[in-house]
Formats: sequence, structure tokens, C-alpha cells
Amino acid sequence: MISVVGDYMKKAVGMGEIMIQMNPTGKGALKYQTVFERHVAGSEANIIIQMQRLGIQTSFITSVGDDQFGEIISSTLRAEGTNTSGVKVDPDHPTGIYFVQRSYPVPNKTKVFYYRKGSAASFLSSEDINESLFENTDLFLVSGITPALSEKCMNAALKAIEICERKRIKIAFDTNIRVNLLQNAQKALEVLSVFIQKAQILFTGTGDLSFLFGSDFTDNIKSMSKIAKNAELLVIKKGEEGALCLDLSSGKKFEHPSYPVEVIDELGAGDAFDGAFLAGILKGHSIEQNLKYGCAAGAMTVSLKGDIEPLPSWKDLELFIETFETNDEKLLR
Amino acid sequence: MISVVGDYMKKAVGMGEIMIQMNPTGKGALKYQTVFERHVAGSEANIIIQMQRLGIQTSFITSVGDDQFGEIISSTLRAEGTNTSGVKVDPDHPTGIYFVQRSYPVPNKTKVFYYRKGSAASFLSSEDINESLFENTDLFLVSGITPALSEKCMNAALKAIEICERKRIKIAFDTNIRVNLLQNAQKALEVLSVFIQKAQILFTGTGDLSFLFGSDFTDNIKSMSKIAKNAELLVIKKGEEGALCLDLSSGKKFEHPSYPVEVIDELGAGDAFDGAFLAGILKGHSIEQNLKYGCAAGAMTVSLKGDIEPLPSWKDLELFIETFETNDEKLLR
Amino acid sequence: MISVVGDYMKKAVGMGEIMIQMNPTGKGALKYQTVFERHVAGSEANIIIQMQRLGIQTSFITSVGDDQFGEIISSTLRAEGTNTSGVKVDPDHPTGIYFVQRSYPVPNKTKVFYYRKGSAASFLSSEDINESLFENTDLFLVSGITPALSEKCMNAALKAIEICERKRIKIAFDTNIRVNLLQNAQKALEVLSVFIQKAQILFTGTGDLSFLFGSDFTDNIKSMSKIAKNAELLVIKKGEEGALCLDLSSGKKFEHPSYPVEVIDELGAGDAFDGAFLAGILKGHSIEQNLKYGCAAGAMTVSLKGDIEPLPSWKDLELFIETFETNDEKLLR
Amino acid sequence: MISVVGDYMKKAVGMGEIMIQMNPTGKGALKYQTVFERHVAGSEANIIIQMQRLGIQTSFITSVGDDQFGEIISSTLRAEGTNTSGVKVDPDHPTGIYFVQRSYPVPNKTKVFYYRKGSAASFLSSEDINESLFENTDLFLVSGITPALSEKCMNAALKAIEICERKRIKIAFDTNIRVNLLQNAQKALEVLSVFIQKAQILFTGTGDLSFLFGSDFTDNIKSMSKIAKNAELLVIKKGEEGALCLDLSSGKKFEHPSYPVEVIDELGAGDAFDGAFLAGILKGHSIEQNLKYGCAAGAMTVSLKGDIEPLPSWKDLELFIETFETNDEKLLR
Amino acid sequence: MISVVGDYMKKAVGMGEIMIQMNPTGKGALKYQTVFERHVAGSEANIIIQMQRLGIQTSFITSVGDDQFGEIISSTLRAEGTNTSGVKVDPDHPTGIYFVQRSYPVPNKTKVFYYRKGSAASFLSSEDINESLFENTDLFLVSGITPALSEKCMNAALKAIEICERKRIKIAFDTNIRVNLLQNAQKALEVLSVFIQKAQILFTGTGDLSFLFGSDFTDNIKSMSKIAKNAELLVIKKGEEGALCLDLSSGKKFEHPSYPVEVIDELGAGDAFDGAFLAGILKGHSIEQNLKYGCAAGAMTVSLKGDIEPLPSWKDLELFIETFETNDEKLLR
Amino acid sequence: MISVVGDYMKKAVGMGEIMIQMNPTGKGALKYQTVFERHVAGSEANIIIQMQRLGIQTSFITSVGDDQFGEIISSTLRAEGTNTSGVKVDPDHPTGIYFVQRSYPVPNKTKVFYYRKGSAASFLSSEDINESLFENTDLFLVSGITPALSEKCMNAALKAIEICERKRIKIAFDTNIRVNLLQNAQKALEVLSVFIQKAQILFTGTGDLSFLFGSDFTDNIKSMSKIAKNAELLVIKKGEEGALCLDLSSGKKFEHPSYPVEVIDELGAGDAFDGAFLAGILKGHSIEQNLKYGCAAGAMTVSLKGDIEPLPSWKDLELFIETFETNDEKLLR
Repeated sequence: MISVVGDYMKKAVGMGEIMIQMNPTGKGALKYQTVFERHVAGSEANIIIQMQRLGIQTSFITSVGDDQFGEIISSTLRAEGTNTSGVKVDPDHPTGIYFVQRSYPVPNKTKVFYYRKGSAASFLSSEDINESLFENTDLFLVSGITPALSEKCMNAALKAIEICERKRIKIAFDTNIRVNLLQNAQKALEVLSVFIQKAQILFTGTGDLSFLFGSDFTDNIKSMSKIAKNAELLVIKKGEEGALCLDLSSGKKFEHPSYPVEVIDELGAGDAFDGAFLAGILKGHSIEQNLKYGCAAGAMTVSLKGDIEPLPSWKDLELFIETFETNDEKLLR
Repeated sequence: MISVVGDYMKKAVGMGEIMIQMNPTGKGALKYQTVFERHVAGSEANIIIQMQRLGIQTSFITSVGDDQFGEIISSTLRAEGTNTSGVKVDPDHPTGIYFVQRSYPVPNKTKVFYYRKGSAASFLSSEDINESLFENTDLFLVSGITPALSEKCMNAALKAIEICERKRIKIAFDTNIRVNLLQNAQKALEVLSVFIQKAQILFTGTGDLSFLFGSDFTDNIKSMSKIAKNAELLVIKKGEEGALCLDLSSGKKFEHPSYPVEVIDELGAGDAFDGAFLAGILKGHSIEQNLKYGCAAGAMTVSLKGDIEPLPSWKDLELFIETFETNDEKLLR
Repeated sequence: MISVVGDYMKKAVGMGEIMIQMNPTGKGALKYQTVFERHVAGSEANIIIQMQRLGIQTSFITSVGDDQFGEIISSTLRAEGTNTSGVKVDPDHPTGIYFVQRSYPVPNKTKVFYYRKGSAASFLSSEDINESLFENTDLFLVSGITPALSEKCMNAALKAIEICERKRIKIAFDTNIRVNLLQNAQKALEVLSVFIQKAQILFTGTGDLSFLFGSDFTDNIKSMSKIAKNAELLVIKKGEEGALCLDLSSGKKFEHPSYPVEVIDELGAGDAFDGAFLAGILKGHSIEQNLKYGCAAGAMTVSLKGDIEPLPSWKDLELFIETFETNDEKLLR
Repeated sequence: MISVVGDYMKKAVGMGEIMIQMNPTGKGALKYQTVFERHVAGSEANIIIQMQRLGIQTSFITSVGDDQFGEIISSTLRAEGTNTSGVKVDPDHPTGIYFVQRSYPVPNKTKVFYYRKGSAASFLSSEDINESLFENTDLFLVSGITPALSEKCMNAALKAIEICERKRIKIAFDTNIRVNLLQNAQKALEVLSVFIQKAQILFTGTGDLSFLFGSDFTDNIKSMSKIAKNAELLVIKKGEEGALCLDLSSGKKFEHPSYPVEVIDELGAGDAFDGAFLAGILKGHSIEQNLKYGCAAGAMTVSLKGDIEPLPSWKDLELFIETFETNDEKLLR
Repeated sequence: MISVVGDYMKKAVGMGEIMIQMNPTGKGALKYQTVFERHVAGSEANIIIQMQRLGIQTSFITSVGDDQFGEIISSTLRAEGTNTSGVKVDPDHPTGIYFVQRSYPVPNKTKVFYYRKGSAASFLSSEDINESLFENTDLFLVSGITPALSEKCMNAALKAIEICERKRIKIAFDTNIRVNLLQNAQKALEVLSVFIQKAQILFTGTGDLSFLFGSDFTDNIKSMSKIAKNAELLVIKKGEEGALCLDLSSGKKFEHPSYPVEVIDELGAGDAFDGAFLAGILKGHSIEQNLKYGCAAGAMTVSLKGDIEPLPSWKDLELFIETFETNDEKLLR
Repeated sequence: MISVVGDYMKKAVGMGEIMIQMNPTGKGALKYQTVFERHVAGSEANIIIQMQRLGIQTSFITSVGDDQFGEIISSTLRAEGTNTSGVKVDPDHPTGIYFVQRSYPVPNKTKVFYYRKGSAASFLSSEDINESLFENTDLFLVSGITPALSEKCMNAALKAIEICERKRIKIAFDTNIRVNLLQNAQKALEVLSVFIQKAQILFTGTGDLSFLFGSDFTDNIKSMSKIAKNAELLVIKKGEEGALCLDLSSGKKFEHPSYPVEVIDELGAGDAFDGAFLAGILKGHSIEQNLKYGCAAGAMTVSLKGDIEPLPSWKDLELFIETFETNDEKLLR
């Protein structure tokens, strides 16, 4: 059994937009799709739910419409055990939705059609960030999507950061760049630099780094480290090549390869990684272990459809790792 | 066989918004629905498709987004044989969509959640009304929904009316009041009066009449007739009580009872009625016959889910009527 | 418990075409149906399977294609316990199939599209009727569909009748008129008279009687009795009005009302009636009881989709009857 | 808007077994069903969830297996907002499951096949009833199913009652007789009397009364009142005839007719009634109003499949009632 | 953007059988399949629809039954924008259908069961080939399936060829050999030689070549070229090895590799290739480009189920090619 | 065509538990699965059905509950043609069921949740083994699952073995170790040794061998051979490495590689192998051929979901083998 250090229950707060996803049962052009499944998805929420499932006490800050879709989002968080007192119900703006088109025009890649202009979450503002939500909190998590949604959201995120600094709450930030929101490197740096600078734990990926700084990986790490003035850990997700963590205080470098599994749905893998890594941090595990947990949770996530459904508990995470390490299926029986 | 008078192929033009409908496979609060079927729906388009299926050559004027949903709408019209040269593809605004909630909170009634603020169709403007679309046209059809969508749409509809008057094309108008667009009687009369006044064939229903003028049916007909200065026929749909047609030139009154069928889905029945009545008019049938066709098409429509799918051809309309009149199932074998 | 008289296991043989039915999951014009469920259906087979489920040892004579659909038909019979040594596999003709269109153009009525011209069953011939199949048989069952399929089928049925007469096997015949096969009364009588004349137990319905002889019910019974020279029992199914049995030897008349249930799918109800009535006869029950069993099995069948699936065992038939008679749901728990 | 008296948030605790229900997508004998939907169901839990949805703060006491099905049950309660600190996870016994057979052999009636012998909930014992769960509680709810499950469950329920008496928490009890657990009147009275006697609010139904005491309704009420020594309100659910409440302190009698809706799925209607009635009590509404809420919630529940899904919020309950009272669909738009 | 040469809208006419395909939702022996999806398929129609989607104005010549399945075929063509004035509705013969069995007995291969003997299309005759359909036409497309269907079809195809020669319309022919129609090389050459000889653009594949001429690829090309006296281009599809085009006038040879995608459904890939290649020809692109378009359209088609659904527009074809060439997913966002 | 030696129809008897399997339509944690498909599965039954499909006359001995699930199991066997006179219907114990969780927590691996404690089959006892079932039998088949189910089952299996020895019926045994029933090597040997010792044809696999004896393959074979005192053939299934057969009388060794197919569902492949191998033995084919049939049947089984559905007939088995050997798809058309 993965040992858990201490009994104090650690607490984390996350923030971001959660949307209703309409996902066709078939692949190909949406034009020919007539049946859709409704899902719930949001990058920061995925991370927080992964942490909750790994024994962290979590809360989430977002805004949803005063409609059935908003209720679905609140119920989903509650079902997982995440505290929803920070979920605003906005009577004036609807819950955002989007449609997914799979494997067309490019096989195994996904195209997305948004109906989220003016969504409730894009109207989340600094007034909605209630300091009381941050009581006894050990970690705050936000990603680059949130400040990119609207100026209001940017200010809300900045207020949360300001509270965390005052209360000495650890800040985790994932650059999580969405090109349709942040057009180019200059715009992205404008929006994200302040968060990169404030974070103690900074997640990014090889794609984000090259989008921001160019093609040379070593240079990119240097560029990022230069901005990340408060970072203790810089974690770089490298997809099929695994993950890397720089301990910026000690200068040490840790790496873990990815687990070789068939990729069914790549979405949400990075979120699972972040959540498992952060849960490990809060549980007091070593960086080596946390990289392993992150890679395992990511592998489990790419093996299944959906963002939230594949996120493992400790017991299942452990079973995955042991089965891969021992290649012994008897553990499953 | 229903005899068709003359071989000249009559032509009708319609105008209005067509949306993507997301309809859950289950009944009850949307919160618990996870699978949705995609449909296409639009009141005026339903009427026009019913006419097309009954042998009228039709065209439709609308605007859709430059996206997969816009393509679905164009394909649907084309599949039915309706000419789509009047369908604008708007690169800047998306196709409108809405979600349907069935049997909750009121059994067998439907609640609707719209995502159509800023839809492509609400930006349809008078510049999009090309006079050439009206060449050799016998009838123009629009309803009260279109001018209620936006000022631009109002102007577009007025331009179409103006062209019809100039070209002596018959105007058919259905009041088709949507309370969420036209709040109250005063607002509704403000928007609709000009169309009521210009129409030669005017459709309305008992619900619309009481919304506009109050509870007394006889008074309501007088009030309506007073505004409807150019109307030749005033057709009043009375739901389960059938339909009524006043021949305003002769002063004669015609009535037809409804066909007693189980109601599966009430939506679209009025549109089917209008389409079958108008097709009968253009084919040269009598008012009595056209009321019968309208009631039969309406009954067939309430017996099945969907707006477009139940609309009958002449052959099937005739089979429905004869089976009901003779009560002889052998016609089906 | 319904008491069963004696332990000798009675044996019945049936004969007829069994087809693959493609039934859309939705109602309405086939044009709009994209998903179909595959079923197996055949009037005489339904009757035989009802008998098998009520404890009669049954065999069936038919012909199927040497294809997957033929295998489905054989498997279905075998799964029910019916002996399939009389099922011919024809390498030269395919298994017949048909498509069902529900509730269009007439609500709650069914239209059928056949692909059975040249089906294996229509090539069943007198050479395929092996006398050994009739060893130790108590009853033979065929209906008016079989001789109407083709001249070959007519001859095959006649050969079976001839064997039964020789071996003193009781003959049950249901007129079962299909208008698309037997166009009019004259043609129908030409084809069916010989079977009506030979049967000891004769089933017919009010619809068949009026098709053959006209509108007067009393006259019709007389006309039918006149042809039915060997009949001991004349059973007339009257749909919602229940059923009637004339004991032609004693001249007694027995009646039973139908059970008031909601009609979901009227197909197969008459077959269930015949099967339960005949099983009762072979088990040695009284005519009154057998009418009750027939009406109950018919009511259970109209309450569910499918022809074979609703057919009850004795235990379930009894539970249905007792619950209706006592109105006590506790029997179900 | 239904006015809510005071802002103090009332708290209720419920107790009982929650099971996994496997419900076939089709009707008829299970033998022919190949696709099943998984649901969650439990009478007391339904009542508690209805109360939660109507603004009461609720907790639930139960036991589930340490398996995926147990997690589903906990998630379902949490999603609704019900506190789950009283949900025991039992490593030694599985979560109970049952299969549903619909409309066979009796149309529109349900037969149930249980796999719950030795389920986790049947091992719930008095040690699992933690007094701290009853802090600041206004009402405790249990039904006749729980003590009938096992002796352990009986003792657990008695312990809860004892705590409530000590803490002066109001006790609500529904007789909720399951014949397969309580065979006959004598056994039922043996098990239930103590609960009937202790309850301040007592729910029963016409079926339960006649099972316990016989066929005379007036006598039955007298018999029940005689046992119910602490009851302030005796509420009798009469199905299609509505409901009746006797105020035993004042001797006044209140009645409300049922709302006439099509019955789709009768299960859970009584639970919805209880939940809405009790929420009204805790919110300080009059008995007349609470009967109305109960009948409305019951009507909404029979109109839809599922036990939990149809349970309304105040807003939807109000919309249902107003639409029925005014017959005005405009409220829906 | 792929540049399009000139604004004159090119016109193509195709000819062939279109059938209703019943495709089970599951893989394995048909015996175990109970749910089927209805599709529309036909090799020449696929090619024509691909051309239509790439900006060519197309017409199609075929014959369908006067039934719901015939209506589906006409609607499908119309929905795509293809002119259907050449679609005959035959009152005497049904629309052909076939059933597909997937992955049994050979994994990932398809077996087909036809019900098309005597289909409407097999009765298409030279009288149905109306010269007016060929007005202003730039290209005519037919494949080896059509003349192999029946002698009538052969004559109809010959009449079309004769019209094309007279009107100097370019003839494209794909050998498209179906072994169940053309048994052996001798029979195939008997039927196909005249079309191979008349075509200016000739498509074939490595399988067809070896069926006709033997195992040596170089010899096969020579044999084919010898018959193809009028061919300007000989295009050979080589499956995973890409495609080859011989410019017979210049003697030049062009090749393009296939795009490496996972094969989901190999059917229709060759049709997509032909359609994209021919559209490129009519748009005035180079042979190199047209091979690339063909290979890309083929790759997109094997990546998805269905024949028609995966066929790309220019925009999507371009997006596919650029994403593969740049390996940059940002193009998708 | 695979030649069949002699016309005498060989007869085999099998014995074991058959259960109802509830298999979710989606992959991932059961918690998120809401739709399940019902299947029937049982290792020995799979083997027997494979033999039946390959022309052996089979019977099966098992016990099922007196419920709908028991009926499904009997019907399934009968549908395949297997004699069910040895199927006991137990009124006191239910049919066993289990739930399958796919791809979680380990991708492409299956976890199973049983509800079979006290199932009807686990109460099968030696009194249920009727000697008359073994009349004219050529082969008896049982596997290591049966004696591991319960002591009663062990005794029942021993009684069957004893009858076979007396009647000189060949005994085939597959070690088929289930770790959840046989914890460790010592326990497994305790339970299985007597069956290993009695079998003339002994099947095992590399996994079972290492579980029983350790990691050295050559040693394991020796250890096994030492126990298997009556074995004529020792067949070792090696998964992707094919299969091996030792002819213990001659000392000869035969091997066959596996057919390279994509693995969709590994369950049941070993059963298909055994069934095809044994059918080949009874038909009089050589060991080389039988290994080929076994490997082919196994490959066909892993290519499709389900245990019973993929099992081939001789015709389909032959088609699979020839297509792989010739790589010629024309055989499929």
C-alpha cells in the first residue's frame, strides 16, 4: 500500500471554467452525427477531482448558469466530494457548452465547436473570490485558461493569488495554453507571466514551451526558469517521453518515463498528471514518487474516454503501477 | 387519388430561422439526461417542407453559420427538394441551437433552453433578400417568429413583403406568437400588425387570439378581421376542436373537426396544417378539402416525434384519410 | 396450479414459413429510420412455440436458406425446445425477410415491405414432407398462409393433411387470411376450402369471416360450418370482444370475454390464442378453460412487443389469470 | 413563490438500505432482455433526497459494500447534497442488487429478482448508529422496510429511535410494508408496532392498512390510531384518490385529491409524497399546503421513470401546481 | 488554400446502382447480430459525391424502387447537391439491399449477403439514358460494376458511352471488379474491354490487374495499356503502397505514397481516391497534386466508417494534408 | 473442404458452471457504467459448444436456478444443439451472476465482481450425475474450475470420472486455474492432481504451469508429465506463441504458431482451442491438423467480443485458415 504521511487532511482550492461537453457517439464530421453524449469537463476541475480522489480535501471556485446544466456541474463536483460553496450560480448568463468532432478531418484528432461567448464562467469576477474559501488551505491551483477567458476572470485569478500570498498558501500553476484564447507567444506571455512568476509549483509541457519560447528545449527551460522567480518545482510534461521535474532550490533534476499504453483519448492526461503529482506533494511523498504517480494517472487517463472517469484512487493507482512493474495479472483477480 | 388541378408546378417561397434541436432520449429534468438526439427544426421551414412534399416547388430564405450545423440545415432542405439558393452562410455568427426538456416539471409538456442569442439567422437583414429569389413565385410564407427575432429580421421580412406586393405574389402569414420573444399583447401587436394587415391568407390559433385580444372568441375574430385588411382567408386552428376558415370575401364559414389520434408530440402540428392547407390552395382544391388536408396532416404530425419526419406526401395523406373514413385496414396491406 | 391431466407427453407438428423481421427502433416513415432490430416471426411457428412452452412436445416443418438468417431461425426453434429435424436448409434460395413501418401513415397501424419473392420457404414442396416426422403425433397445425404462398407449398400442405388423415392425427387449421396473398373471397375459398373441410379444430376470426362471406355474423358462421364438414370445434376470435367456441358435435356454444389490457402490439395475439387453446385441448382441459387460456395468452401478447417473447408458460399464464381475477398484486411479490 | 418561513435551515436524518437496480431497457420476460440500465433505489433515501431538494439539510445512515456499487450509492447521495458521514463501507459484505422484470406476466406490473441475501445493509447494526450524526437534528425518518431486513437492522433502528427520544427529535415513520419481508399481518405488527407507537408523524397507505387490519377503512384508521400513541399526524396515502391527514391533537381531518396525470412508473410516488410533506412541515407550512405538495410531488414522480430523477425543487413543484391550477402553458415558456 | 483554376463550374455525370446497406452495430457472425444501422452505398455514387463536395456540379443516373428505400437514395443524393433528374423510380422492382457481416470469419474483413436479384437498378435500360442529362457535361464516370449487373445495364452503359463519344465528353472508367458478378478473367474481359478501350481516364488497382492478367505487375500494365486505346491517364491504386499515374501521351510516370493512418473501414477508399483525383483534373490541377488529393481523400475514408460520410471538402482535405505535412496540431484549433 | 473421417456421429459430455455475465457497454470503472449487456459464459460450456458446432453431438451437465436466468442458460445450450437433459433446475439456489469491469485500473485487462456465493451450480452434487447421460459417449470434458467451486462439485466431478473409467470413456481435462478459487500451488495441486492423473487428454497453459511448478518451462513439463499418468496427449497453450502437443506414447512433439490477429477480447480463446482440438480428435484428424484447428479457433475468438459468438463451424474455420494461408480475399466474396 502507498503509505500516507501523517493524518492531517490537506486542503486544496482550485478555480476555473467547467463546461458541458456534447460528444457524438460516432466519429467523423459533426454533420453526420445524430446522437450525442453529455459530459462535464474543465481542466482545473479535473486536477482538483484527481486530488480529491487521492485523499485531499478540495474546494472549487467557478460560476455556472442558473439552469439544469449548471446543476449538473455542481452535482458532479459534489458527487466527488469537492466542496461547492465557491460555485456561483449566475442568473444572467448561461453555462458554457461545446461540441466535439472526433477523427475528422484528421484521424484520432479532435476539433471543438464552442458556444461559450458570454458564459457564466467568463463573468466570474474578483468580487466572487471570497477570502473565507481559503481558510486552512494548503494549496491553490489555477491554470492559464482562466486568466485567458476574460479580463474579469484575469482579475478574479489575480485576487485569488493575492489572497494566497497573504495567507502563505502554496500556488500551483499550469501554463495550459489554448491557442484559440491566446493567439501568439507575446499575448500568452502578457497574460501568463504574472502567474508563472507567482507559482511555487509550475507545470508546463513541451508544446507550451515551444509555443512561448521557440524550438530549443534547453533554452526554453532557461527562459521559463527566469520568469518563474518563486518556483520551487518546475514540472515539464513531455507526452510519450514521460515527465521531468527540476527542483529549483537544489538544482536537482528528476525524470520518469511514460507507461506504454494504447492511447484512446488523450484529453485530460495532463490534468490527471498534475492532480496525482500535487496530491503526492501534499501527502509528503518524494519527487521521484510523485512523478511516477503523475505518469501512472496520465497513462490510466489516456486509456479511457472521458476526463473525470479514469482518475484513479490510491488503491487503483497502486494496482496499475504494480501490475506494470511485475507484469503479473494475478493482482487483478 | 386526390386529383391535382392543372400541371403548372406552383412555386412558394418561405423565410425564417432554422435551428439545431438537441432532444434527450429520455424524459425528465435535463440534469439527468445524458444522451441527446440532434434534430433540425423551424416553424416556417416545416410549412415549406410540407408544401414541397405535396408537390409545390419551394425555396427558403434563411441564414446559417459557416459550420457543420449550418451544413446540416442546408442538406436537410436540399434533401427534401427545397431550393437553397436563398440560404446565406454567415462566417461571423453561429447556427442557433436549443435543448428540449420533456415532461418535466409538467407531464407531457416541453420546456426549452435556447443558445441562439446572436445566431446567424438573427442577423439576416434586408440586404439578404434578393428579389431574384421571388421570380415566378405564387406564394410567400412567413410567420410571427421572424420579425420578433431582431430588428434586422423585421426589416428583412418587410422587404420580402414589399417585393411580394410589387410582384403581386400572394402573402400567407401565421401569427405564431412566441411569448418569450413578444412578452405581451401590446408588443405583439406592434410587431405583427403590419404582417397581419398585408397577408391574403392569415393563419392564427385560439391561443394566439386570446393572447392578443382577450377571452371572447367571437370578439377576437372581429378584432383580427379589422386589422387584416387584405385577407381573403382567415384560418383559425383550434387544436383538438379542429379548424375553422372564414372566407372574408364571401363571408362564408367552413369548419372541420380534428382526427382523433393519440398525441405523442404536439410540436409541429400547426405547421403541418398550414403547409397542407396552402398546398391545397395552390393545387386549386376547395376550402373544405384544404381544411381536411390540414387537419389530417396535423393529426399525422402529433402521432409521431419530430417536426419534419411525419409530414405526408399526397399518397400517404390520402391513405390516412381513407383509413379513418372507412375504418378499413385492408388499405394498408 | 393448473392441473395437467395424465403424464403422457402429447406431440404436435406445425408447418409454415418463418421470416426475418427488420423492425425499426423508431416509429414513422421508414425513410427516417436508421436503426433496426432483427426479429424472427411466423404465424404457425408462434402457435407451435406457445404449445411447446405449455408442455407439448413439438416439431416444425419449414425451409430456410443456407445462410446466417436460416441459422437464426433454426436456433430460435431449438432454443424453445421445438424439434427441428423437419427444417430443410435450401442451398439455392434465401431466407425471406421483411421490413416493418410503424404508425405511418396511420397511427398505431403497421405497414410491411416484403423481400420474400423466391424465398426458401416458398419452395417447400411435397417431397420435403417426410412421413417419419409424423410418428406418434397427436395434432397437426397449419394455417391459410402456407397454401397461399405458392403451388409447391399448397401441395406440401396437402401431403401433410393426407398423412394425418391416414394416421388419424387431429388437424387444426386457422384461416389466417392475408389479403396480399389471397386478393379476394373467391380466390381465398379456392385455396382454403380443402383445409377448412379437413380440419377437426378450425380457428377463424370475425375479419376473416366477413372477408370470405360478408357482413352478417350469424350467416357467416353457417356458411363456414357448411364447409367445415369434419370440424368438431369451430373457434372464432373476436378481438376485443373475446372468443367463441362452437362444439359442432354437441351444438353447444362457449364464450369468453377478452382481458382488458393496453394494446402495445397487436401482432401475434391470435397465434398465442390458438397455441394456448390447443395446448389445453391436448392436456385434456375443458372448452371453457381453453377459451380462458387462449384469451389470457392473447392479452399477454398484445401487452408486449414481439410475437414469441410474450408467450407464457403455465406458471406465468396462471399468475396473469389469478392477478386479474383477484386484483391482488401480492401474487407478484 | 412558495414562501419559506424563517431562515434557520432545518435538518433531517434518514436511514435504510439503498440498492443497485438493474432495469432492462425492454419490457417482458427477463429471459429476452439483453440490455440493462443501472439505477440506484431505496425508499427512505428517496424521501430524504426529496427533502434535500426542497431545502432541508439532510444526512443518511446506511451501509454499502467496499466496491464500485457502494461508491455509486455514496456518490449519488453526495451529488444531491445529502451528508454521507453516516454511510458505512463494509469490507465483508457486498452491496445489494436486484433485477426488475416489467409488464410480464402482468401488464404494467413489476416483478423483482433480488440478490441481497447477506448484503452490507442487512448487516447494519446498532454499533453503526453514531449519536453524533443526530446533532442539531429536527427530524428522523425511517420506514418499515429497515427493521424487516434483519434483526441487526431492527436493533439499529431501535437505537436511532432511542437517541431521538432522548434528544427530542421528531420521528417520522412510514409503514411501507413489503410482503416478501413481512409475510403476514401478525409478523408485520410484531416488527412495526414499536415504530408506529413512537412516531410523531406516521405515514401509511390504504394497502398497508388492509394488510394489517382488514377491509374496513374506518375501522383500520381506528386500529392504527390506537397503536400510534405518540402520533400528532396520521397521513394516509390513497393512490389515485389522493391523500388524507388526521391531526390527532385537534381531531381535524384534511384531504387533497390526486393530480390527474398519466402513470408511467408508479414506484417512488409514495416516497416523493412523504418527502414533500415532511419538507413542508419543517418549513412551517400548513397541513393543507403540505398535502398539496405531497400530492404534486407524487404526481410528478409517477409521470417519469426512476425514483430519484423526478423529485422536484420548490421552483418546479410550484410550476407544476400553477400550471395545473391555471391550465396556462405560458408559465412554461 | 488550394487554388482553383477558373470560375467556370465543371459538370460531371455518374451512373450505377445505389443500394440500402444494413450494417450490424456489432462485429461477428450475423447470427448473433440483433441491431442494424441502415446506410446508403454505391461505388459510382461515392465517386460522384466526392466530386460534388469538391466543387464539381454533378448528376447521377440510376433506378430505385417506388418505395421508402428508393426515397432515401434520392434524398441522399439531393442532400449532397447532386442533380437527381436522372434517377428513375421503378414501380415494378424494389430497391436492392444487402447485409454486411464484419470480422467473421476473417478478422477485419467483410462478408456481404445480397438481396438484389431483380432490383430496380438491374432493370435500368438504354431507354432510361436520356441524352438531355449530358448537356454541358465535362466528364462521365462509370465503373465495371454497372455493365456486370445485367445485360440491360450493360446496354444502358454503352448508350451513355456512345452519347459521350458523340458529344466529346471525357469518359472516366474504373475497372472495379466484383468477383461475384464477373467470376473469372475471361468473363471480366468480355464485359469490361469495351469500357477500358473507350475511357480517357482509366482507374484500376493491383488486385484487379492480377485478376485480369496474372501476377507480374509490369506485364499487367502493358496488357492493360494495350486494351486502353483511348486512355490519356492510367491510374493504378496500390492500397498501402499509394498510387501511380501513367501519362500515356507523354509516357511520364507519377507516384504518391499513401498517408499512414489506422484503417478502420477500408470500403470506399478507392472511390474517394477517384473522386478527388477527377475533381482535381476538372479543376485544372497537376497530376502530382491530383495523386496527392486522391491519396489524402482515400486515407480520410479508411479512417472512418461509412462510404459517404468521410468524403472531404477542399477545406478539410487541405487541413488533413497540412497537418500531416507540418505535424502541427495547432491548425486544428 | 476439411475431410471428415467416417459417418459415425461422435458424442461428448461436458460439465461445469455457466453464469450470467453483466458486461458494461463502456470501458472504465463500474462506477461510471450505466448500461450493461447480458451474456452467458462458462469455460467448459464454451468448449462443448465449440465441439457441437464442429459436428460432435454434445450434452452438458450443470445446475441453474429456477428463474429467468436459468432459462436463458438452458435456451442457449439448446439453441446450439447441445442436449440439456443433464441440466438440473434448482428451486433453492439462484443462478450465479458476475459483473465485468474492463480496462480499469489496468488498460485492456478485466476485473470481475462475483455474486455467486451459494449459486445453484455450486450445489451440484454427485447425486446429480446420472450414469444414463454417459450412454454411447466417446469423450468427457471437465476443467479445474469445477472441482474448485465446492466440495459438492468436486465429488460430482469425481463421480463423473469414475463412470468414465468404468465405461472406458476418454477423459479430457484442462487445468484452467482460477487464482481466486485456488489461492496457491499447493491448494491447486491438492484439488487438481486426481484429475490430471486420470485424464487421457490434458490441456494446460504456460501460466498454469508456472503457477503450479515455477518458472522453468522444461522442468514444468516434466513435473506435469509425472503426475499425468494416464495422459496420451499433453497440450500446452502458449498464447501468442502458439501451442504445443506432446504425444506421450510416442514421445513425439508437435507445434503450431498462433495466427497473428488483433486481440479484441482474450477471454474464451483457450476454450475455443480445446473445443476445436477435441473435435478434430473425435473426427480422426492428425495432431498437426488439430493444433492448427485449435490455433485458428482461438485466433477467431480473440478477434471478437464474447465467448460463444466467435466459435466457428468447419466451413468458417476452413475459410479463416485458407484466407490466412493464401492471403486471398476473393474467398470471402
